[in-house]
Amino acid sequence: MTTPSAQPLAVLAFSGGMDSTTLAAYYHRRGYRLLLLTVDYGQRHARELEAARAVAAHYAAEHHIVDLTTVGALMPGSALTDPTVDVPEGHYAAESMRATVVPNRNAIMANIAAGIGSARAAHVVALGIHAGDHHVYPDCRPAFLTALQASTTAALDGFHTPYVDAPFINRTKTDIARLAATLDAPLALSWSCYQGGTAHCGRCGTCVERREAFTDAGVPDPTTYEQTAP
Amino acid sequence: MTTPSAQPLAVLAFSGGMDSTTLAAYYHRRGYRLLLLTVDYGQRHARELEAARAVAAHYAAEHHIVDLTTVGALMPGSALTDPTVDVPEGHYAAESMRATVVPNRNAIMANIAAGIGSARAAHVVALGIHAGDHHVYPDCRPAFLTALQASTTAALDGFHTPYVDAPFINRTKTDIARLAATLDAPLALSWSCYQGGTAHCGRCGTCVERREAFTDAGVPDPTTYEQTAP
Repeated sequence: MTTPSAQPLAVLAFSGGMDSTTLAAYYHRRGYRLLLLTVDYGQRHARELEAARAVAAHYAAEHHIVDLTTVGALMPGSALTDPTVDVPEGHYAAESMRATVVPNRNAIMANIAAGIGSARAAHVVALGIHAGDHHVYPDCRPAFLTALQASTTAALDGFHTPYVDAPFINRTKTDIARLAATLDAPLALSWSCYQGGTAHCGRCGTCVERREAFTDAGVPDPTTYEQTAP
Repeated sequence: MTTPSAQPLAVLAFSGGMDSTTLAAYYHRRGYRLLLLTVDYGQRHARELEAARAVAAHYAAEHHIVDLTTVGALMPGSALTDPTVDVPEGHYAAESMRATVVPNRNAIMANIAAGIGSARAAHVVALGIHAGDHHVYPDCRPAFLTALQASTTAALDGFHTPYVDAPFINRTKTDIARLAATLDAPLALSWSCYQGGTAHCGRCGTCVERREAFTDAGVPDPTTYEQTAP
């Protein structure tokens, strides 16, 4: 069978950043059709959505914005949902990044993806969470993934149940940069910066982490930063 | 402390139906402030939302509609999200009610409530699921609740973690009708019918189940049905 519909479907939580773009490349390379879900808590800059669309187009993927604006409005206190909270600068793994936590974010996103994946008979539902997320974000840790898999198995008992995976969960961001190069992931199209500029700011947590990953991996960084490396 | 803000907060998944209205009565009676979340997959009839608002006003509760229209649009095949699928008639526990399953619905709803509950420092997050739901809906069963609690504990590790509860999970709908009478729950304001009429249709699965519960409990049924009992 070589018709497109015979390919298994992968539903991915997809921000259009470096990790989820590499995740798309990973499943594309394995022969999956991609259904990419970009969750918007009301915080997405137009630049992020533009990047997500560009990566989706690169893979001829089905792409949808999941609008959770009404949820984000009920979560005060996070820099990613509350306009009165500043986006912290500095290293992504630092304690100050707690301000960017949206509580239960990956659980919400993964469960939405699993519901859609069940309705669409997907083979796999996947998240791009990785080891570098573990320190600050509890819903990026292996213990969370295990609990999520158990919850999905119970919630979909008797119905189509996609396998819930996070293939990068024990890889570092540096591993992802290296893997992306191997997979020809279109990272030049991806967007990581928490600020809404025309180029990556180079100062916010995700910019610092992104740049560091390319450097440590020893692979070319296709990103334009407003501020040069310190 | 007697100021309202000193009351602990309960975040409830709240459709404005009989079960979640009784759930609101249950936590109100226990001295909680109520934050009621009505999830809309694009399927809510105006009559349902009107009922939800009336019950919320009865308890002077904070009430929000969580708009998941973009999620519902990606879940073909359920009578509750897909306008091309008819709402089945007959008994709520019958196999035909599988058509009303929205896959992973309670997992999505509970995880949104848990995220909001964490951000708002709620003491409890609760669902109105009950024993009568177990046969058709896997995400209403005790195994699901246990897995959900484990997932929430993992996902919110180090952050405010509300207790996730479903106090009716082992009670029948008849038990709920009886409890509602004890708690003076405003069931005359509540709405169960899957159809969008001005009165309860009396024929769809939830109408049949609602009427049966009052009859079996031996308590007055305040509902007006278009069709009298068979």
